[in-house]
Order: sequence, then structure tokens, then C-alpha cells
Amino acid sequence: MNEDKITLAHGSGGISTRNLIKDIFYRHFNNQKLIDGLDSAVFEAQSGRFAFTTDSFVVKPIFFSGGDIGKLAVCGTVNDLAVAGAKPLYLSCGLIIEEGFPIGALDRIAESMARTADASGVKIITGDTKVVEKGCADGIFINTSGVGILDKSYVTKKIMPGDDIIVTGTIAEHGTAISRDRYGLKVDGSFMSDCAPINHIIKALHGYMESIKLMKDPTRGGIATALNEIAEHAGKSIHIFEENIPIRKEVQALNELLGIDPLYLACEGRAVIVADKAESTEILARIRVLDDGKEAQIIGCVEDAENTNVYIENFFGGKRILASLEGNMLPRIC
Amino acid sequence: MNEDKITLAHGSGGISTRNLIKDIFYRHFNNQKLIDGLDSAVFEAQSGRFAFTTDSFVVKPIFFSGGDIGKLAVCGTVNDLAVAGAKPLYLSCGLIIEEGFPIGALDRIAESMARTADASGVKIITGDTKVVEKGCADGIFINTSGVGILDKSYVTKKIMPGDDIIVTGTIAEHGTAISRDRYGLKVDGSFMSDCAPINHIIKALHGYMESIKLMKDPTRGGIATALNEIAEHAGKSIHIFEENIPIRKEVQALNELLGIDPLYLACEGRAVIVADKAESTEILARIRVLDDGKEAQIIGCVEDAENTNVYIENFFGGKRILASLEGNMLPRIC
Repeated sequence: MNEDKITLAHGSGGISTRNLIKDIFYRHFNNQKLIDGLDSAVFEAQSGRFAFTTDSFVVKPIFFSGGDIGKLAVCGTVNDLAVAGAKPLYLSCGLIIEEGFPIGALDRIAESMARTADASGVKIITGDTKVVEKGCADGIFINTSGVGILDKSYVTKKIMPGDDIIVTGTIAEHGTAISRDRYGLKVDGSFMSDCAPINHIIKALHGYMESIKLMKDPTRGGIATALNEIAEHAGKSIHIFEENIPIRKEVQALNELLGIDPLYLACEGRAVIVADKAESTEILARIRVLDDGKEAQIIGCVEDAENTNVYIENFFGGKRILASLEGNMLPRIC
Repeated sequence: MNEDKITLAHGSGGISTRNLIKDIFYRHFNNQKLIDGLDSAVFEAQSGRFAFTTDSFVVKPIFFSGGDIGKLAVCGTVNDLAVAGAKPLYLSCGLIIEEGFPIGALDRIAESMARTADASGVKIITGDTKVVEKGCADGIFINTSGVGILDKSYVTKKIMPGDDIIVTGTIAEHGTAISRDRYGLKVDGSFMSDCAPINHIIKALHGYMESIKLMKDPTRGGIATALNEIAEHAGKSIHIFEENIPIRKEVQALNELLGIDPLYLACEGRAVIVADKAESTEILARIRVLDDGKEAQIIGCVEDAENTNVYIENFFGGKRILASLEGNMLPRIC
């Protein structure tokens, strides 16, 4: 048996599985709830409203500029809980690993998950490891599910014409970093995924929850798709000003070169927030004082048209409909 | 675009993904928490102790005698919650699908998940669908995570010498059905997976929770591995009587033919229960009145040796150590 590679025995549920779990996951995720765990982990909670979410991660490549599949898997679920208005508490980690996968890489991924979980204040308390034969998966796939407790002061509210739309930072950086890394594009400049937990940003807005109507994290499908989902949810149209959308010059330029519209590329550390106009500039200011909120912008507002289109207006006043993503932009972005 | 197959666009997060979710998952899993769901589903709960668990399913073949990957994915997580002493409440469903997978098969799987969820009284309230390129996964992989609320009357207790060990039904049926189906063995007899939710069995034992020390579902690694985990957890040895282990004759015969020890083959609808001797026969009787508990048996007891071995004694009084599964028995059993 090759000690440095994952074998089918690591997925058998027997001694090899137990040793792998102890050597890698107990060591990195080190917390009593996980270690106590027989078939389920146990946690205590006060009565309240809970958020529950799941996400599987199949990103390619698994190590990319600014992150890796482990960091992404923790951020993705933490952020889904955070934009639901929940304080993320506990995560699960379900792995599907291809036979022959290097154990060293698994260790780095687990270490990255542990570091990201620490940074976002969550604990990974339950897990599962399956192994499939060589050729039956592509390296490693990770599912994280998460449980959080809802902030009592936040509920989704009726979105009204005039409500402002805020993006908490520069867009399309995850999608662009993945394209660059996957296709080995030789271009100058820094292309890093924005992959990061955003729960602290939303926590910083605690005092403004009365004015926040809805939050979303614009992952697959980018902000174009997130805005369309918001328009559909609200039953209202949305008007966006292209020049207000924060995007780094290098990201814009590379995507022009590739013929990709960055509005459809995933962010993995941003939120789109619909806020009452009366407090939107204060909310924006509160985000901008944060290290990763300096580039936040109000990018447009909700309008009272008879449809649920998203309109985007360019610098010259030209207006077009920004549709939801049709077909496929870039597979395996997350 | 072939309308009958999964395409990469179905995993894009755009319109195709949304249509697939509406056409298949909203239809089958039909519940308001799922349909309301933006990035997380929301549920209310009283204060208490919660169980949280996760499992990824990679079973091959995906349709097998007595079940399919969807039924298995729901049972697996429901059962992990149930043996933790929890009432299963909510499940998530995370799918990784290979490009080209037939949409008709996905529909059957979702329908099977919905039926099994109904039968076990849980709701699937949040989900995620990823698609990977042809050749990067083997058909479909499903992760289910689950949340349940713990029965206040149940806590794991110190296992003592003399405690009895109950198995709730005939063993090795899931593993045997999978082997038979996967390798196309032409043998007479009925070989059906035991795949089923067992939460109703544990619910029926509600009045006996004071006497139940520990429960496990003997999936990967079979009852041999479950018993070893119990011995290790207890810090005590276990003595099992081979003739008391319920196993169907056909299952025994086929495994003898294959040279496989059925004690290491997965059950997917059984529990192993450690119970105080004072009430174990009553507990057994209570299980046996249930439709799927008729074959339940006390298979052995906990002993006070200086080690954590599992000893198995055969009909002639011969005793051997039943070790945990080493290496790999049958990959992708669940």
C-alpha cells in the first residue's frame, strides 16, 4: 500500500478510514464535538429560527490563486448562512476522494478548511469520507452543510421602488482567477480569488437590519444572476449603473481579452445588499470602514416597472437588459 | 442541447439550473421551506440539544435490488440521526452529477428521495446541484446532511459488563444485494437491500431510553466494525454468539460462495443497540412486534476483559477475535 496516496481502503469505513480521520481531520478540525461524534455530532441551542444550507464544491483547479477547494468550501457555506441573516455556527464536511489522491494535498486542504473555519468563527463538527476508484471522480469534491442561528432583528422584507443595491466589493475576482489558473493564461497583474468569509461584514451591519431588505452572495452566475434573482423575488425591475460597479482594471481587461462578461463571473467574498434608501449611504459607509469593504458601492436601485428585468445603463446613457445566465459560462467555478 | 441529458449548463447557476431545480426538486420535495429558500432554508426550533450529521453516497450501481442511491441517501442520514437518539427533522441534498446523466434517472432518484423522506417524517429543505464534465464523476453522487432534535430521555451511558447487544434484524443484506447486482451474479433467491429508515424502530423504544446505553447503525464495515467501535468506545470487550446473529440462509450461502464474511457487509436498515441486561429482553420484544423487527436478536453481551476485543463464539464453542475491517471489503457500498 502506498502510504502517500488515498486508497479504496480509506473509504471502507474500517481501520484505514478511522486512521485517516484521526490523522487529518481530528488534528486540523480539533474540537470536542467532532471527536466525541459517533454517528452524529451534538450541539445545544436556544430556541429560535435556524438557517440550514448545503453546497458541494467541485472547483478546478483545487489549488488556485487566493485559495483552494477547502477554503472555498468553508466560505461558501458560511456566506450562504450569513446572507440569510444567520450567525454561522456549525459545519459538516463530506468528502468524495478519487483513489490515488495525494494525502499531502488532503492535509493541506483540511488545514485550509480549519484556518478558514477559525477565521469565520464556525466549527466543523461532523464529517464523512468516501473514496471512489481512479477515474470515477476528479481528485476531490467537498460538500459542506451549515447550521446558523438567525439574527432576530433581520427578516427579509418587501422590496420597494427606490431601494438601493449595494455591492460590498470588487466583482468577478474568483471567476477570473479560476480562468487564469485553469487555462494557464500568461498575463501580467495580480489575479486573486476574493474567496473569503463575509459574515463579519454582515455582523458589522447589525444596527441596520431594519433597513436591509435582502442579501445574496453572487457566486455562480455572478452579480448578473444574483440581481435577476432579486428582481424576480421582488417582482420589480432593477436599474444598475455600469460605471458604479466596482471592478479592478486588470480583471476588466483580462475578461475583455477573453470575451467574457465579468458580470456573470462568480464572486466568493462579496454580498449584494438591497437596502432602504433612507439608510443606504450609512450602510455603505459602515461597510467601507472594513478592510475588505473599502470598494463597496451603491450600484443601482429598484424601480417600479411592470416587469422583473434588470436594466444596466452605461456611461453614455445606453441601457440594455442584463439577463440571467443562459447556458454555461465557466464550468466548475466552485 | 439534448433535452434528456444533464449538461454543464445545468450546473451553471443560471436559468438551466433554476429550471432543473423547479422541474425536479421543487416538484418532488415540495415543501414551502425549500421553495422559499434563497441561500439558506429557515426552520424554527425550541431550545434543546440538536444532532447534526453528514454522509456522501457514491453507491454503485445507483439502482439496486431494494433501493437506489436516493433512498439510500435519505435512509443513511435519517438513521445516523436516529441512532444518535434524535428525531430527524430536516435534510439537505447536495448533488454532483456527471455531464450526460439521464434526466429521467435523476427524476426517479428525486422521487425516491421524496418518498423515503415522507416515510421517515423528514423534509428536504435545502439543496445544491453541481455538474462536472463527462468522465469527471461516475453518474451521480449525493450528499445528505441532516438536523434532528435529541430525545431528552436519551443520553449515551457508561457501558457495563453484562449489558446486552441487540441487532434489530437480519444482517449483510445491503452489501450482498450490491455485490450481486454489481457483478451480475446469476444466483437463485431473493437478494434485496435492507435499506430503510429505522427512526420508527427507535421511536418505539421511547419508554426504554433509560436502559439504552448506545446505538449504532452498522453500515460500511458491517456489524463487525460497529461492534469494534462500540468495544473501543466502551473500553470493554464484547462477546458475540455466532448462532444468534440473524442472517438469511441465502445471504449466508452467497457470501460463502464468494468467500466474503457477511459480518463485514453493510446493513442499511438495522441498528445495533447496547442495552442494560435488566430490560434487554423487553426491548427485544418491543422491537419484534414491529414489521421490520421480527428477526431482532440479542447477539451477545459486554464483558469485563482487560482489552477492547470483540470475541465471536461459534456453535461448537470455538472463539476467535472479530477484528475491525482492515483494507477494503467492497468499495462503494453506500
